[in-house]
Amino acid sequence: MAHDHSHGMSNAEMQQCIRECLDCYATCTATAVHCLTLGGQHASVEHQNILVDCAKICHTSADVMLRGSYMYAQACKVCAEACRTCARACETVGGGDAMMQQCAEACRRCAESCERMGSRVV
Amino acid sequence: MAHDHSHGMSNAEMQQCIRECLDCYATCTATAVHCLTLGGQHASVEHQNILVDCAKICHTSADVMLRGSYMYAQACKVCAEACRTCARACETVGGGDAMMQQCAEACRRCAESCERMGSRVV
Amino acid sequence: MAHDHSHGMSNAEMQQCIRECLDCYATCTATAVHCLTLGGQHASVEHQNILVDCAKICHTSADVMLRGSYMYAQACKVCAEACRTCARACETVGGGDAMMQQCAEACRRCAESCERMGSRVV
Amino acid sequence: MAHDHSHGMSNAEMQQCIRECLDCYATCTATAVHCLTLGGQHASVEHQNILVDCAKICHTSADVMLRGSYMYAQACKVCAEACRTCARACETVGGGDAMMQQCAEACRRCAESCERMGSRVV
Repeated sequence: MAHDHSHGMSNAEMQQCIRECLDCYATCTATAVHCLTLGGQHASVEHQNILVDCAKICHTSADVMLRGSYMYAQACKVCAEACRTCARACETVGGGDAMMQQCAEACRRCAESCERMGSRVV
Repeated sequence: MAHDHSHGMSNAEMQQCIRECLDCYATCTATAVHCLTLGGQHASVEHQNILVDCAKICHTSADVMLRGSYMYAQACKVCAEACRTCARACETVGGGDAMMQQCAEACRRCAESCERMGSRVV
Repeated sequence: MAHDHSHGMSNAEMQQCIRECLDCYATCTATAVHCLTLGGQHASVEHQNILVDCAKICHTSADVMLRGSYMYAQACKVCAEACRTCARACETVGGGDAMMQQCAEACRRCAESCERMGSRVV
Repeated sequence: MAHDHSHGMSNAEMQQCIRECLDCYATCTATAVHCLTLGGQHASVEHQNILVDCAKICHTSADVMLRGSYMYAQACKVCAEACRTCARACETVGGGDAMMQQCAEACRRCAESCERMGSRVV
């Protein structure tokens, strides 16, 4: 996942954030399907949308950072919020399910990383 | 482009915003390639990223609205900003090029529509 | 949705196919949520994946065509198959539901358009 | 990147392929911007489209696999082809550039992994 296109943003913290975003995207995408198989509240439009929103917005943030775009701080702010919401939902709905717990953890790591990127002075 | 999944958001204004977002996504994607062929400032990382950011964020906003997700207002706010930036860039860099003028117009229409969605009380 | 970047593919048929792909993407995305609200077979992993696959692959095909890329014929072939599968699923599972019938029709239109693009000599 | 939704596809080989696809997506996305800064042949529509196609198709394949969808073999076949094309282009155009060499290697790893998935009997 190389990235050295000389826009002053190719540092270790942004690389870490890109990895967290892609990991969170992947985890939420797989968890949404897992939740469909569980049914009930897990398969509600609300919970499914929270997971899919989080996946999509994580992917968009990763993409913006990978291209070294000026919009990364704004993208990461929205991403942090989507991740916080998804972490809470996975914990509330999860009821001890291991995959949802894992998803909540990926969301929290991504939220923390995105909050750091989102608070950079641009 | 049907959408009647009873979340109170399937109205004409949101449908219009989805259409503007998808049109802006398509126009920015085609314009980025057009700008590559023009070369010079049109093919700079800065201008290319502005166009691709706008395309991606428009697509993400459309997706969030199509699913009736609660995050639509935030997604539309970021989208409006990406569209405003892209419209300005296309006008500044464009120098009378017809396709870039068309792109600037699609961006402005989308920005206006997204601003209305982004200011809804959620 | 302008597109004149001189790769010999900017003709009316490709423009029509791009529109069908984006319309099918939008319809399948909204229909997946609609199906979640209906529950039962509509909310099964199988049916949800068919709708989401179709949406994603339609979007990817539109993107490839919008950029005038050489891969359009292959992308459209896979897209036509995803659309045919989704049309059949919506008709089988639909049971007279108006939105699923609309989705099946969007899928068939897109499949026909993609089949024409996929059979072009590249 | 958890994935245990019981469709018989959550094995180590598919997990590895998902990782290769996401890594290739990220590498190609960053390399496209790097190539824009290099200019010349690197910034041509042809080379940029090859990189962006590869990125998009890798992302789509990862998504299809993450959801355990039946379409994974077809998605992986197209992906392998996009990766092979991109690897060749990066080697031809690259001229010893380290980032393009890294991109070619990510593409080859992904192509090999996708070829294995694409040849599974479905």
